[in-house]
Amino acid sequence: MASDRLDLTFAALADPTRRAILARLASGQASVTALAKPFMMSQPAISKHLKVLERAGLISRGRDAQRRPRRLEATPLAEVTAWLVGYRRFWEGSFRRLDTLLDERKTDTKKRRYTNR
Amino acid sequence: MASDRLDLTFAALADPTRRAILARLASGQASVTALAKPFMMSQPAISKHLKVLERAGLISRGRDAQRRPRRLEATPLAEVTAWLVGYRRFWEGSFRRLDTLLDERKTDTKKRRYTNR
Repeated sequence: MASDRLDLTFAALADPTRRAILARLASGQASVTALAKPFMMSQPAISKHLKVLERAGLISRGRDAQRRPRRLEATPLAEVTAWLVGYRRFWEGSFRRLDTLLDERKTDTKKRRYTNR
Repeated sequence: MASDRLDLTFAALADPTRRAILARLASGQASVTALAKPFMMSQPAISKHLKVLERAGLISRGRDAQRRPRRLEATPLAEVTAWLVGYRRFWEGSFRRLDTLLDERKTDTKKRRYTNR
């Protein structure tokens, strides 16, 4: 993978609004209006963030000509994962803690599911 | 993990020189002079990059008062990994390709080892 691709991806991920947009898109594609809703931000401000994500290849535009819904793209996330795998022996020591964290998250999700029934 | 920690880590990783410094430190701690060597950069320029990495917690300073060698720190890498795990279902589709990539790297490393004998 090209180094400048990783530069763009890491830079795009270095912002809480952009990470929140990705988190929203992880549950399905969404229009710019829908994406702007949870943020106290103008649509142009959101559009600027979307452009950064799009340039990094983290999101793309759907075919619906009117809504142009954005959707999450996996490739840059896989590339960052591949980069991190090279440092596996450093972070895998923290993985028992991470496993616990993930188990807690799973339990939370299950709890939420039961509550929503 | 705090969102601003992730901001700092992702921003620190969005630069090829800083990623190369981390790659060098992955094979052991090193002084600033040793770190500056492979780059066509002044020591102050390298020190600036080191400060960004240090602020993100990706590196720390050793105890040797004279050399103050830098070493790689695992925690921010583990935090980025934890963040990525949340998007697992998106990038794991790319993982057959990634497995191939890692197998190739392993083979390369083995080849290099044999050549160095």
